[in-house]
Order: sequence, then structure tokens, then C-alpha cells
Amino acid sequence: MFSLNERIAELRERVRQQRPLIHHITNFVVMNDTANVTLHIGGLPVMAHARDEVAEMVAAAGALVLNPGTLTPEWVESMRVAGKRANELGIPVVLDPVGAGATTLRTESNRRLLEELKIAVVRGNSGEIGALTGMGGVVKGVEAVVEVDDPVAVAKALARRYGTTVAITGPRDIITDGARVFGVDNGHPMLKTITGTGCTATTMIAAFAAVERDYALAAVAGLACFGLAAEQAAAVAHGPGSFKVALYDAIYNLSADQIRAGAKVVEL
Amino acid sequence: MFSLNERIAELRERVRQQRPLIHHITNFVVMNDTANVTLHIGGLPVMAHARDEVAEMVAAAGALVLNPGTLTPEWVESMRVAGKRANELGIPVVLDPVGAGATTLRTESNRRLLEELKIAVVRGNSGEIGALTGMGGVVKGVEAVVEVDDPVAVAKALARRYGTTVAITGPRDIITDGARVFGVDNGHPMLKTITGTGCTATTMIAAFAAVERDYALAAVAGLACFGLAAEQAAAVAHGPGSFKVALYDAIYNLSADQIRAGAKVVEL
Amino acid sequence: MFSLNERIAELRERVRQQRPLIHHITNFVVMNDTANVTLHIGGLPVMAHARDEVAEMVAAAGALVLNPGTLTPEWVESMRVAGKRANELGIPVVLDPVGAGATTLRTESNRRLLEELKIAVVRGNSGEIGALTGMGGVVKGVEAVVEVDDPVAVAKALARRYGTTVAITGPRDIITDGARVFGVDNGHPMLKTITGTGCTATTMIAAFAAVERDYALAAVAGLACFGLAAEQAAAVAHGPGSFKVALYDAIYNLSADQIRAGAKVVEL
Repeated sequence: MFSLNERIAELRERVRQQRPLIHHITNFVVMNDTANVTLHIGGLPVMAHARDEVAEMVAAAGALVLNPGTLTPEWVESMRVAGKRANELGIPVVLDPVGAGATTLRTESNRRLLEELKIAVVRGNSGEIGALTGMGGVVKGVEAVVEVDDPVAVAKALARRYGTTVAITGPRDIITDGARVFGVDNGHPMLKTITGTGCTATTMIAAFAAVERDYALAAVAGLACFGLAAEQAAAVAHGPGSFKVALYDAIYNLSADQIRAGAKVVEL
Repeated sequence: MFSLNERIAELRERVRQQRPLIHHITNFVVMNDTANVTLHIGGLPVMAHARDEVAEMVAAAGALVLNPGTLTPEWVESMRVAGKRANELGIPVVLDPVGAGATTLRTESNRRLLEELKIAVVRGNSGEIGALTGMGGVVKGVEAVVEVDDPVAVAKALARRYGTTVAITGPRDIITDGARVFGVDNGHPMLKTITGTGCTATTMIAAFAAVERDYALAAVAGLACFGLAAEQAAAVAHGPGSFKVALYDAIYNLSADQIRAGAKVVEL
Repeated sequence: MFSLNERIAELRERVRQQRPLIHHITNFVVMNDTANVTLHIGGLPVMAHARDEVAEMVAAAGALVLNPGTLTPEWVESMRVAGKRANELGIPVVLDPVGAGATTLRTESNRRLLEELKIAVVRGNSGEIGALTGMGGVVKGVEAVVEVDDPVAVAKALARRYGTTVAITGPRDIITDGARVFGVDNGHPMLKTITGTGCTATTMIAAFAAVERDYALAAVAGLACFGLAAEQAAAVAHGPGSFKVALYDAIYNLSADQIRAGAKVVEL
């Protein structure tokens, strides 16, 4: 466990040194939040969705985030164009299948992205990942209201089907590339009281995927750092408004020493 | 008055217990804010506007918010599709006619929504509601720069014309279903210093309308809780930035006891 | 220098007195932020982009902000429609060429807006303004990762080519109408840790341009006030989350006396 924490601490510094551009094609709700978090963790954000420019924009990026949280067919088409170019260039694509399972459009659009693109990491809640595998879970809006029975099995199934890394976030985050399985026990219930924390977690993963080609490790690092910052924020917050402010402060200030001491990561 | 406060306190707990999904088709400015406030008061938010999914999404919702604050004809069409489905299912539709009166497109689009859909509650400022009735008020952008002379008469006129509940927010909020008229005296001038407080008030109303079929009471409850939270926030704020943070904390923390002691509601 | 500070202090009060409507056609990332900052400095914001209403909306405005930060061709077309109407009415148009230089679409769209419209002020970072002049600088996403060699020469070149005022923001902001050149030394490195501070600076300029026809002075005033508020915010912040909250408080509370004492403006 010491060795994993040490590697995460090193990766966090690497993000700060390399300042990777994280190209987001994402939903309207969280654009401001995920742009900020990209900066706080040490990257550079850009939000660009025009079909005419996404291929050119992504070529400069260290990672591409696809988040169809307020999707239309036109936006999904831009995601495919950008994703294909990222695949050609070897730039990691991180998918957040927001609300998969809630409507046919969401489930099908996310499945198609998984089928047509090489996705480095998929991060969702238990219901969303369950919907994509067809192995249970219920999504209401964008929330998992019924969890899958066995998140490790579900995550592994999706990872193997698409040759990707899958992260299911929850009280214990589960991350697997289909072979190795990691658990991250950082985090805090206050994360459920503000919107877009799943999307923000995805952005954290993308920032790490931009600097580390072991995408399972990148996902573990992103989620451990995010959860650790949430723990620090909850300790000083009076409610969700001040929690969010403190969370962003904590992401920015998160030090290698805090990660070494506080990351709670296990290989299962 | 005690009895009304008691009922509002009970409704606030009901939102927390039932966690209704509030489907928003709303403007880009406030999506993040209203998603957060939905969570803070106890509901689940979803923002979805694709014509291909709105009818399916709204079927799972406890209430639908239509807020054409950054409207285009395509978005208004999605609002109609979602609204018609909500009407079929008996799901309350809450309309926020942002900027009605400022442009022909806004006035006409909101009128058409009122004519073609069964709206449970319309909430606007004095100028917006005046523009919809044709009874005065002037809107500049999204702000009432000239108030209507007699808000009770204007609200009643609109409520009767469309068989809806109308809420005009201002220093004293006026709520009427065309028969009963309520005044809510909670609130604080600091609400005028941040954007989207009208939209947020509408979301509060929707959360209560999802759990209470007396929509006038739901509107009263939403506005009393919102105004009470604003009073608490203003007491600790140093300006609009910290006011917004404290407002969100206060909405989340608002207790039944605080409502019993602090709601200022009268039947007129 | 005293005289300039005195004029800025007077302009800040003028914004508060006149409450100009600032019509934004802007990007999704910052809509909430720039609407809030418009209110905090004393104006009224409206965000409206529908081709069917922009000409009518802008007619009521004191200034128009065009910010193609998440552009599509349709949005740029609405910007042209609104801009042409603003030009007819003598309403100042302020352009923020977000990401010019990063993609062909961005560079070309912004150039076309400069060519087809009479722009009162263009505000960008060193790379964006460099890209528009063809005089160097490199933009990655929306960030200048290589600065132009001589910002004064670059700003003057663009100002003269289009008969506009140009503001390049950075550690020292450079403002020129092609003849006079001003430097503003207010600001703080923390501004680089949150998203949209360039866009927010543009909104500040627009609020002042709505009340002062010497657009170079308006730009100086907007940037001095913004930078001064940032200095005050940095003194109390624990990170970027609390910095943003304090920044918005400071913009709202910024007094004429603070401007007289704290604005750091020089004519070069």
C-alpha cells in the first residue's frame, strides 16, 4: 500500500509539472466545475464541442473527456469525431456515461461510444455501469437508486468486453482493467450533496491519464486524490455550499505528503 | 399562521423522505445552481433537453421545470414535448417565464407554453407576469424595472385565465390559485445581488409541488423556505459570493423547527 | 496618476447609478460567473443567443459582449446579427476572442467578427491577440503558453488595423486605442487558478464601456477594478475555491476610496 501511495503522490506532481490540456466535450451543468478542477489539479482545461474544430483541438490535448450528461445527437456526433482523432493520436479518452440506464438515448449513445472508440477509462456510478453491462442497477435521472449486486463482477465484465478500464464510484470505488482490481476508500458522504461530483471525479481521472499510461493506476490516483480532498473539505464545511468551496481549495492544495499519509488504496 | 408554518415544515421533511426527481429543461446560466439546490432541499436533479429523450425522462420525475431563460425554438419544442407527456402522467409542470416582456420571442414562447400545457405553477417577477397578462410592468433583460401596480390583481388574472397557480416574487411574494391569495414575507435584498435566484426559487417550488398536490401551498412552502434560507445567509455574508455559499448551506440545513419559527406566511 | 484613479472611481459609481444592461452572447463555461459579476459591479446581465431575439434584446442594452469560447457556426451567426444591430444603435461591442490561435475555427471566426463589426474593445491574453495579428504567441486550449515578444506593439497593431481598443491581460495589462497606451498593474497570480477570469475581465470592461465612451479609459477602469478586487481576495483566500468567493465579494464591495488608493494605472 505504501508503494501505491508513493506512486499516486508522484503522479500528482507530474500533473503539476506537465500541465496537460484536458479537452472536454461535456454537459452544461458541470462545465464550469470541471474546468476549475482541471486547473486546481494542475492541468489546462478547454471545452469545445463544434464538429468543425474538435479534431483539431484534441490534437493538442493530453486527454479527452466525453461526458454526454446533457446530450443531443449532434453533441454525440462531435464526441465520435473527437474520439476517433484521439484514438489515432494515442490520446486517452475518458468516458462518463451520465444517466446511462435512465433513457434509451443515454444507454444507446454511451454503448455506441464504447463500441466505436477505444476508451481508456469509463467512470460511472453503479447503476450506470450496470446499465451498460446489462447486469442490473437502476438509474433515476443521473443517480443510481438501486446498486448492482456485485460491483467487482460488473466492472470486470465491462472492462473485458471493451478492453478498457472501468471505475465504479461509490463508498468504495472499484477500479479494474479486467485483470487487476483496486479499491479506493477515500471520499465522504457530502459528495452526494452537490451536483457533478461524478463528472468531477472523471476529470480528475483524465488529468492523471494524461500523464500515466497505466490507466488503472491513473484512475486509482484520480479517485484517491478526489476522495482525500473531499475528506479534508468535509472537516471544515457547514453544508454543501461551503463544502464545495473547501473541496476546490483542497484539490489545489493537495500535497504529496498528504497523499502518502491519507490515500486509502488496496489491490483486491 | 402557525398551522401554515406547521404544514410547510412537514412538507420540507416530505421532500427529504421522497427524494423526488426534478426534471429541468432550463437555461445555461443556472443549470449548475438549480441542480445543486434540488439536491440541497432533498430532491434529485436531472437536466435533459434532447427531443429524443425528454418524454422518457419526465416519466420518472416528480415534477418538471420549464425555464426558457436562454431559449431557442428547438428548446421550446422540447419543453412542449416534455410538458405534454408530464400532463398525460399527472406530473406537475412548473414554468419560469424568464425575460417575458423583454423580447417578442420570450413573451410569445411563454404564452404558448401556458396555452398548450397544463401548468401547475408559474413563477416570475412582477414584470414577467405583467407581460404575460398584458397588465403592465417593464422587463429589461430578465429584470423587472417597472413593477405592476397591483400584483394581486395581476396574479389572479393570470391564474384564472389558465387555471394555474401564479407566484410573483418580490419583497412580498404573492401566490394565488385564482381563489386563495397568500403573501410570503421571507427573503432578503441580497437575493438581488446574485444571478438566478428567481430560477432557484422556481426549483424550490417544483420540489414541493412534487410532494404536494395543493400547488398554491407547494409554492408558498418553496418560497418561504427559500426566503428563510436567504435571511440566514445574509446574516453571515460579506458580499454576494459568500452570500451564495451560505444560502446553499442554509437550504440544506433548514430544519422543521426553523421553519415553524421563521416562516412569514399570511393568507390575504 | 491621481487623476486617472479619480476618473476610475467616478466611473465605478456611474455603473452603480445607471445599472446598464449587459447583453452577453457568451460561452457555456462562464455564463453564470459573468452574469454574477455583471450584477456585482452594478449592471444587469442578460444571456440571450437565439437568432430570433438577439437584435431585439441588444436594443435595450448598454453594451454587448461577444465571447465565442464554446462557439459553433450558429452562435457566431447570432453574434453577427446582434453586433450589427448594436453598431447601428451605437451600442459598444466588446469581443473576447477565447482560444483564437488554438483552432482555425476560432481564429477565423474572431477575425471575421473584427472585420464585419465595429468592435469597441477586444480583450484577450497575449497568445490570443498575437494570433489575431499574426505576430506570434502560442495558444493551447484557451491559455497563452507562449507570450508575444512585444505586447505593446502587438496591441497597437491590432488596434490600428481595426480602429478599436485592444486590451492584453497579463501580469501587466496593456490597453491601447492605437494612440494612447496604458498599463494596469493590479491583479494577482491566483487569477490563473480559476476558470473564466479573462471572460470576467471582459464583462467588467463592458460594464464600464456602457457608461463611458472613451473605451480605452473604460477598459483601464474595468481591469483596474478587477485586479484590485483580486488583490483583496487573495489576501483572505485559502485556495482557488475561497479565492473566487472572496473575489465576487470584493467586486461588489469595491468602493471609490479603495480605487483611489489602490488602482495602479500608468500611461506609457
